[in-house]
Amino acid sequence: MHRSLRAFRRLGRSAGLLASPPSPGTAAANAARWAPLRAAMSTQESFRIEYDTFGELKVPSDKYYGAQTVRSTMNFKIGGVSERMPVQVIRAFGILKRAAAEVNQDYGLDPKIANAIVKAADEVAAGKLNDHFPLVVWQTGSGTQTNMNVNEVISNRAIEILGGKLGSKIPVHPNDHVNKSQSSNDTFPTAMHIAAAQEVNEVLLPGLKKLQNALEAKSKEFSQIIKIGRTHTQDAVPLTLGQEFSGYVQQIKYGVARIESTMPRVYQLAAGGTAVGTGLNTRIGFAEKVAAKVAELTGLPFVTAPNKFEALAAHDALVELSGAMNTVACSLMKIANDIRFLGSGPRSGLGELILPENEPGSSIMPAGKVNPTQCEAVTMVAAQVMGNHVAVTVGGSNGHFELNVFKPMMIKNVLNSARLLGDVCVSFTDNCVVGIQANTDRINKLMSESLMLVTALNPHIGYDKAAKIAKTAHKEGTTLKEAAIKLGFLTSEQFDQWVKPKDMLGPQ
Amino acid sequence: MHRSLRAFRRLGRSAGLLASPPSPGTAAANAARWAPLRAAMSTQESFRIEYDTFGELKVPSDKYYGAQTVRSTMNFKIGGVSERMPVQVIRAFGILKRAAAEVNQDYGLDPKIANAIVKAADEVAAGKLNDHFPLVVWQTGSGTQTNMNVNEVISNRAIEILGGKLGSKIPVHPNDHVNKSQSSNDTFPTAMHIAAAQEVNEVLLPGLKKLQNALEAKSKEFSQIIKIGRTHTQDAVPLTLGQEFSGYVQQIKYGVARIESTMPRVYQLAAGGTAVGTGLNTRIGFAEKVAAKVAELTGLPFVTAPNKFEALAAHDALVELSGAMNTVACSLMKIANDIRFLGSGPRSGLGELILPENEPGSSIMPAGKVNPTQCEAVTMVAAQVMGNHVAVTVGGSNGHFELNVFKPMMIKNVLNSARLLGDVCVSFTDNCVVGIQANTDRINKLMSESLMLVTALNPHIGYDKAAKIAKTAHKEGTTLKEAAIKLGFLTSEQFDQWVKPKDMLGPQ
Amino acid sequence: MHRSLRAFRRLGRSAGLLASPPSPGTAAANAARWAPLRAAMSTQESFRIEYDTFGELKVPSDKYYGAQTVRSTMNFKIGGVSERMPVQVIRAFGILKRAAAEVNQDYGLDPKIANAIVKAADEVAAGKLNDHFPLVVWQTGSGTQTNMNVNEVISNRAIEILGGKLGSKIPVHPNDHVNKSQSSNDTFPTAMHIAAAQEVNEVLLPGLKKLQNALEAKSKEFSQIIKIGRTHTQDAVPLTLGQEFSGYVQQIKYGVARIESTMPRVYQLAAGGTAVGTGLNTRIGFAEKVAAKVAELTGLPFVTAPNKFEALAAHDALVELSGAMNTVACSLMKIANDIRFLGSGPRSGLGELILPENEPGSSIMPAGKVNPTQCEAVTMVAAQVMGNHVAVTVGGSNGHFELNVFKPMMIKNVLNSARLLGDVCVSFTDNCVVGIQANTDRINKLMSESLMLVTALNPHIGYDKAAKIAKTAHKEGTTLKEAAIKLGFLTSEQFDQWVKPKDMLGPQ
Amino acid sequence: MHRSLRAFRRLGRSAGLLASPPSPGTAAANAARWAPLRAAMSTQESFRIEYDTFGELKVPSDKYYGAQTVRSTMNFKIGGVSERMPVQVIRAFGILKRAAAEVNQDYGLDPKIANAIVKAADEVAAGKLNDHFPLVVWQTGSGTQTNMNVNEVISNRAIEILGGKLGSKIPVHPNDHVNKSQSSNDTFPTAMHIAAAQEVNEVLLPGLKKLQNALEAKSKEFSQIIKIGRTHTQDAVPLTLGQEFSGYVQQIKYGVARIESTMPRVYQLAAGGTAVGTGLNTRIGFAEKVAAKVAELTGLPFVTAPNKFEALAAHDALVELSGAMNTVACSLMKIANDIRFLGSGPRSGLGELILPENEPGSSIMPAGKVNPTQCEAVTMVAAQVMGNHVAVTVGGSNGHFELNVFKPMMIKNVLNSARLLGDVCVSFTDNCVVGIQANTDRINKLMSESLMLVTALNPHIGYDKAAKIAKTAHKEGTTLKEAAIKLGFLTSEQFDQWVKPKDMLGPQ
Repeated sequence: MHRSLRAFRRLGRSAGLLASPPSPGTAAANAARWAPLRAAMSTQESFRIEYDTFGELKVPSDKYYGAQTVRSTMNFKIGGVSERMPVQVIRAFGILKRAAAEVNQDYGLDPKIANAIVKAADEVAAGKLNDHFPLVVWQTGSGTQTNMNVNEVISNRAIEILGGKLGSKIPVHPNDHVNKSQSSNDTFPTAMHIAAAQEVNEVLLPGLKKLQNALEAKSKEFSQIIKIGRTHTQDAVPLTLGQEFSGYVQQIKYGVARIESTMPRVYQLAAGGTAVGTGLNTRIGFAEKVAAKVAELTGLPFVTAPNKFEALAAHDALVELSGAMNTVACSLMKIANDIRFLGSGPRSGLGELILPENEPGSSIMPAGKVNPTQCEAVTMVAAQVMGNHVAVTVGGSNGHFELNVFKPMMIKNVLNSARLLGDVCVSFTDNCVVGIQANTDRINKLMSESLMLVTALNPHIGYDKAAKIAKTAHKEGTTLKEAAIKLGFLTSEQFDQWVKPKDMLGPQ
Repeated sequence: MHRSLRAFRRLGRSAGLLASPPSPGTAAANAARWAPLRAAMSTQESFRIEYDTFGELKVPSDKYYGAQTVRSTMNFKIGGVSERMPVQVIRAFGILKRAAAEVNQDYGLDPKIANAIVKAADEVAAGKLNDHFPLVVWQTGSGTQTNMNVNEVISNRAIEILGGKLGSKIPVHPNDHVNKSQSSNDTFPTAMHIAAAQEVNEVLLPGLKKLQNALEAKSKEFSQIIKIGRTHTQDAVPLTLGQEFSGYVQQIKYGVARIESTMPRVYQLAAGGTAVGTGLNTRIGFAEKVAAKVAELTGLPFVTAPNKFEALAAHDALVELSGAMNTVACSLMKIANDIRFLGSGPRSGLGELILPENEPGSSIMPAGKVNPTQCEAVTMVAAQVMGNHVAVTVGGSNGHFELNVFKPMMIKNVLNSARLLGDVCVSFTDNCVVGIQANTDRINKLMSESLMLVTALNPHIGYDKAAKIAKTAHKEGTTLKEAAIKLGFLTSEQFDQWVKPKDMLGPQ
Repeated sequence: MHRSLRAFRRLGRSAGLLASPPSPGTAAANAARWAPLRAAMSTQESFRIEYDTFGELKVPSDKYYGAQTVRSTMNFKIGGVSERMPVQVIRAFGILKRAAAEVNQDYGLDPKIANAIVKAADEVAAGKLNDHFPLVVWQTGSGTQTNMNVNEVISNRAIEILGGKLGSKIPVHPNDHVNKSQSSNDTFPTAMHIAAAQEVNEVLLPGLKKLQNALEAKSKEFSQIIKIGRTHTQDAVPLTLGQEFSGYVQQIKYGVARIESTMPRVYQLAAGGTAVGTGLNTRIGFAEKVAAKVAELTGLPFVTAPNKFEALAAHDALVELSGAMNTVACSLMKIANDIRFLGSGPRSGLGELILPENEPGSSIMPAGKVNPTQCEAVTMVAAQVMGNHVAVTVGGSNGHFELNVFKPMMIKNVLNSARLLGDVCVSFTDNCVVGIQANTDRINKLMSESLMLVTALNPHIGYDKAAKIAKTAHKEGTTLKEAAIKLGFLTSEQFDQWVKPKDMLGPQ
Repeated sequence: MHRSLRAFRRLGRSAGLLASPPSPGTAAANAARWAPLRAAMSTQESFRIEYDTFGELKVPSDKYYGAQTVRSTMNFKIGGVSERMPVQVIRAFGILKRAAAEVNQDYGLDPKIANAIVKAADEVAAGKLNDHFPLVVWQTGSGTQTNMNVNEVISNRAIEILGGKLGSKIPVHPNDHVNKSQSSNDTFPTAMHIAAAQEVNEVLLPGLKKLQNALEAKSKEFSQIIKIGRTHTQDAVPLTLGQEFSGYVQQIKYGVARIESTMPRVYQLAAGGTAVGTGLNTRIGFAEKVAAKVAELTGLPFVTAPNKFEALAAHDALVELSGAMNTVACSLMKIANDIRFLGSGPRSGLGELILPENEPGSSIMPAGKVNPTQCEAVTMVAAQVMGNHVAVTVGGSNGHFELNVFKPMMIKNVLNSARLLGDVCVSFTDNCVVGIQANTDRINKLMSESLMLVTALNPHIGYDKAAKIAKTAHKEGTTLKEAAIKLGFLTSEQFDQWVKPKDMLGPQ
């Protein structure tokens, strides 16, 4: 369980905190440090023995994975449990393996075997076997070991369903049956695209649309509230608070469009390309049928990639998707920054918005201070997405020949960005946006005190006199009206008639 | 003696090179250091006196710009001439100012004045007055000073056309006439989008398409050349050289699609939003007419931005375009890397491609060493574009309230990426891709020696015997055929019949 | 039938996979989706009721955390368990809270309470209570909620030790006692620095040094193996394999120096600055004593930050450390790339190095193909670190006034980079570097066939004749010696005497 | 001259703006587009004929460069004049070539030739021959063509000094004499380090120190001004404005330390490594002597790199320096953001600082609006530096074997960052920081109205009553004092005695 694995810690550091200085890097410390991880893979102490070409390996009795998975855990002790292959990739593999089994049955695979694979694959796709996927992202760059992990788990689970013996590879062989007509080189990128497309459709886009709707509702709610504009962070001519929010709505709306415009290339699947893109060892039609099956299973418009060489050797489609998410991150950073500054206060900030209070305030400082914690989560996520994007970019640019070998790292970052953006949009909407109130007293006060309204006098008394009024008001700390009357340039009635913020909200 | 060394340091910083430590940052040193820049603004020594609200300023007699431009050169001594506002932005401003003048005439601007503005603006758009735009990118973040530079130059040139006196603002006023119905806050982003769209259409897309065509021609030319594949940089099963290049073609083709999919939002113009997006001080219909006019002048499908608040306060459209270019950079990095490795040699590399020799080889090392210098230019450009993209991202995420004030920096980087990518595609195509030859002897040799072909024997003699053949050949350094015959698993004829790379190029 | 597919989607989002389009984002779906996370917080179904100013909250009976922690889990459903606050931060908090308790005792805190806090804090520092820290990184940007989580856990555990009732805040109050003389604003950055310094010292530096030593041993082992050099990926004049590896040694050695040169600023602790850096509500001397105590507890040279305003409002020290790790990532990318290319083959690559075989090769392709999977893990980590660095940079640049509120995101990325780099160095060393063998046959063959050796003839027969020899050899595919003799420029004996790679390895 | 070159524009776009649609990408358009660049290389129409191994080339009569330079301009039409190799690199080459000539004389180079080279190299170092270096950054990644450009210019200028014929290579040969004991592969990185070190010492560090001093003076000036603190952008407990500025001082001070801590590795020179790092074709002692000579000429502590393989194959030292500049960029972004927000207004912002007015305000909006244009330049530069850093990182990570071929791109970005940061610090200091005034009326008003001061009452009347006072004041919009008295918790005198911001500025 993830849960229990969270308890993992580097034992070597903890004992005798005060007494003994750390002796890191020693073999003993290292062994101790990794012991929990290995232990964590099994909740019991019994093992079965499996073999690969390098010798015998102990596989935990209660796990479906086999020798190649265990071998990987020995060779790639990098980062610990929190760095495991994202479950979305595992689930996508479940979908793919089911689709492949069904198509392979069309091409002659024994229906009994195919059916067992389908059942086992469904369990993988449903996330029921997540505990059987212990491998970390930092493995072979093609994701081969995760593909084999999947093959082993499905094979063993299918064997179990059919009453066979775990590890026997009979009657369901991980390579010959589960991986039939496939290669790590085409299955892993297929799983990448399935996982990315699902995360985009299930988390990212719904999150963005929810936020868009909430902002749009606020934009309408605030459509009659006239406020001071700000350019260069300085006072400027007025606009409505609804207009201000309409800019945010547009940003998010375009964000949705940006994400969607990249999806046609994400919906292209590499399956059928096998080892180098030629489709060696697969069958004519396999690629198209698998893509159609995956589309059917997911409800998403997947098709087979028109060029498999590109689909294995480059992951430009993920770089592109990541780029769109990077743009969305910029939008969110802007919006959340605005909202926290507009909501700053209670006394010494801009104070135009009242943000919902979601948690107890400072234990030392009294009421009125509502920290914009949701905005902070949004902007932190935005920064993370920008960073993830660079990781994806560097990985995407470094493919060689027939295979890009930054696959696990790339998909990890793409999924992370999609998930965080989607989740934070929901959190921001529910816990902040829908509860935002306009502080109309403050807004009106700032509006009425503004020197920028003097612009409205230009056509009536000329720029020079208008400027003099503004300078006088600025210098003496009075309102424009007071200054205007004091200078004798116009009457109180004229001022009220000419200086109407409502008339400054659009072209004439 | 080191008298001659005095000149080593940057002019004005240098005195007493060895003896005295540098004392930069002093007023005198600073003045001297910037003298050349200021001098560069004028090729003669005469000035006219102009005034702004801060006092009198010397404006070079032979320059059309005025006080606000000079003021900016004094306040922003950052980076020197190489950091000037890109000429593409200046040209775009010429187009915009012409369009605005024509539309303003519709709304009542004196046709004589409008005509003179149109003529002057055309000269700006044609790049004839580039010497009159000395301002650097690192100025106000709204680009106000460049907008004023444009207004001053067009005003003075129009005054000259009409026989008036430079600097008099009569009969063509920089603000009242040239900037009529406009604000820096909407004109600068409009010029940004015009400039970006033009650079994309005139440099970037033609460059990409040219490269795509050249790669496609090579893919066809190489369609019958079977070669060893490489995954994980290791030998793998075969494919054709044409197939390998088809992956590159697909990458560039999608690159074009990626760029194009971002353009709808780049074609949206902010003009008409004026100071904060409301369109204060402009006329109903102005925005749409200006966009239509710009579309007419450029032949590009510009429209008015549906939401001007977004168009001023955020530049997500440029972040998005930059993201697409970032993806293209990844594609180019991959392709250029492949080509230089495939062309490595002459004796100790992969040697499958013969790259054209464009320049004399090493002066110390003899014939045969052809450095892949075009690939190097490509990969350097790719790295630059990735960096530019982060700058654009950071700028795009940091807008506040009604105005993003990273405008000049953002457009500089976007234009730089578009230009470099477009140019390097042309250079790479002309000086490398079209001249690439397949080294068929080498390709065949590697192909025939490959151990990976043993895969073809699996169905005939089984995996185990096939593997034994491969291991034997690997260990003894022989061919597969030699090993197979030696082991007595098959005959020479059988080998030739069963091991046919041509049959390994696709699904069955 | 697709009943089994229902489970395909993420739990709770899935019903009617094929029939109905996904309707994510609904309240029900959302509730279901997060149910597992909440459940995961407790392994039993019983709760105690706690209160905060917003009302009553159910706290799992078996957890030490309290109302503020539960409140945070409700408000920040972002990213799930894999996005929890890194355990290193929790441990660092344990150290800090112990230190603070001891110092507070000096200033009058009841020794009984102080002792209980010390014991509880030790358990936190030892990682024994990790299950009690459910909060994600994406919370308030000051880390306040994690500080409160720590205060609640330590308070309740201390209460338990003293025989009190969980949640009663008696006799150990989370704020009044555990957080005494502290604020989230100074404790969180303190924990950041402690965690970063520990990860650097316990994982990163030992990993780097281990790799450096292994590379150094290889450099010595290979010191007599002369090989062809490669510049521009093309053949060049020779060097020894030991010299080539010495460059890698230097890179890692400098990497260690780079990391170490940033540590003086990481060793500075913010503790004592409290809410805004002034130290309000703490005692004179508290800051210095806490830093000394932390230094004692960790064996690392922590000191109090000389300027607490900087220590709260900016995290430049972490940006700096991240920058050093970014440089190390560049070094590792270079080295791992070289090694995989030098080890490419078995037949069609450069083939100069034999990399250890750690896992079964391709199931489809036979012996001899050893995928450089460790190099792939290294380069993926390098890309991730570069991405993390941008996230840290963006967060570091966006602090406002007295507080940077990107704290949890920044430390997450810094710790991730340190851990991944350290771990991957160990993995790379153990599973690749130590087992690298020189393929001397191949190296000698390439060496002897090289055209670049002709350089050695320049002083004897002149550049022109030498070039002619090289060109002839290149054109006819012969050795230099064969071409030289054929052309009659020198004898076989002269060739052997003059062309000695060994004499080309250094200056004369 | 740079100046005249600024007039370069793409003619193919300009003629007939309206009439003809752009026809980019055609050969004719392309030829036209590049014509000005080639023309710009010569101010007259006469040429001399030179030859390289590819045939004859026309070299402008008034230029010192030769065939290889012209060849490069033909093969690398990328980016235009603004993309030329930075003059700092050219100057550094002048220094290096002089140093090499002097050392070569020690090893036997004809003193007459050596002297002429020294004189010509001095002119290059002094920037007198900048017009003779037309090559762009986007050339061979080793910078070979720029090294040859330098060799050709110095050779021809030396020939001229000695009364010979340009292009004759007699009596001073570009390779045999100017490049003696050198290779592009070691000279270019040497010039990179010299140029970077000079820019850091002459521009970056002086700029940072100037800013540090100015901020420090302000910190002292503002030491008695007590103001409201802000955390989470919300009101917090007080500090002095001087304390706030002291944080900025610390950031810049550490910035200087960060830059300086990277310099030891920048001071290491590759010269003496020649083609692959072995030093083939150079003399024992050459490396050390050249480094010493460069140190003497520049007054900077250059030494020879201890490992030349690393010095050619990797440029980690520049990645490291760039990383330090990236940290400085974060500091500057934070400081400039704070200052523009603290200076926001005139009426609707925070208004605590009065920023100097450097240019006329808005033409439409009246007095009082002072746009923080210097802050905007600072933050734009910061974003650029962050982007440059990624470009440097990507280039630095992609070296192969004995040579990194991203050299020109890397140094361009490093120099750009150093220059922009240094310049913008000076501009920011002179035009903003020194003129910042505290708006003490506003500061006092916000201070006295603050609800956060209630914290001071906790010890006197307890947290609950204090909170009630704050809530009442917040709800009713009154001062704390008014609320306190109204609630009857204390007297006016008690309030004044207990609530003293001055007592809240530090620990007790």
